[in-house]
Amino acid sequence: MPHITLPEGIPGIRSLAAYRPDTGKFLYQWAQSLLRGGDSPLSEAERELIAAYVSYKNECTFCYSSHAAAARFLFQDQGAVVDVVLSNYQQAPISEKMKALLHIAGKVQADARSVLDEDVAEARNRGANDRDIHDTVLIAATFCMFNRYVDGLGTITPSAEDRDTWDAMGARMGTIGYVPPK
Amino acid sequence: MPHITLPEGIPGIRSLAAYRPDTGKFLYQWAQSLLRGGDSPLSEAERELIAAYVSYKNECTFCYSSHAAAARFLFQDQGAVVDVVLSNYQQAPISEKMKALLHIAGKVQADARSVLDEDVAEARNRGANDRDIHDTVLIAATFCMFNRYVDGLGTITPSAEDRDTWDAMGARMGTIGYVPPK
Repeated sequence: MPHITLPEGIPGIRSLAAYRPDTGKFLYQWAQSLLRGGDSPLSEAERELIAAYVSYKNECTFCYSSHAAAARFLFQDQGAVVDVVLSNYQQAPISEKMKALLHIAGKVQADARSVLDEDVAEARNRGANDRDIHDTVLIAATFCMFNRYVDGLGTITPSAEDRDTWDAMGARMGTIGYVPPK
Repeated sequence: MPHITLPEGIPGIRSLAAYRPDTGKFLYQWAQSLLRGGDSPLSEAERELIAAYVSYKNECTFCYSSHAAAARFLFQDQGAVVDVVLSNYQQAPISEKMKALLHIAGKVQADARSVLDEDVAEARNRGANDRDIHDTVLIAATFCMFNRYVDGLGTITPSAEDRDTWDAMGARMGTIGYVPPK
């Protein structure tokens, strides 16, 4: 049960965007700009992977399940890459650059002050540039907001095991992106 | 030293908004809507207090110093209310409703899943309505993002003791609000 009276039958953050439309419209614009904006050096799939990873560390079922599904869709992945990233990204078949960026994202999730010059230097050694590092930190920080908004108000969340629901959501996020419902 | 090359001489989150203007413009709109938007039952001063409290708990010097200064300006407070809230809000001369909302904000900062029905019921008993609770959670969540963005990239932060700088920033935030620099 949500902690406040939200529009019925809408899960997760969409119920909150509908509850307060003036901030809700910015949530969509923000997610679209950050996760789909054209000039990031990170692919849409990589950005969704960072979103899913941070949300998983925050144990936000709605956010990690939906963004993991979006990442699976965008990677055209049956689950191996994304699921391994969530459980242990060091073992995942992703680039060394992505591993260094996920290391930074994890530090931002836990305590952003713990990001060290060495962490950033290591990411650069593996091919990351300023925008990779910036976008990684901003995506990680943003999901620390989304996760808390969704869970702090106890929004409706389908079961993490309900893979069909998440797959459908991921396909929607991977095709039309973050746009308000009509 | 910031972890990436940012526009020189600009502190904190303003340097990041200038670095990536497409997301930066939303940061200003978001803060303005959330902290100054006209239809919240929480006063601007109360909203700044929640922002400062969460930022203090995240030990983000830039955010807590600037938003504490904005709260002091809006409360027309010489420091007693705001400084006591930061160190121990239970002892502060604020309403019982605000204390219950700060309790919820603190839980959102630490782990949003820890917000219990009892916490929300207690806030309602003290006069909070759905919008008070919603806006408290969203402000707390938002500053978990801002704090991480600012500290994760190591932005320039004046000394916490440089009260004149923060007072000037707080007065600006309390009068013209969150608008991009000309």
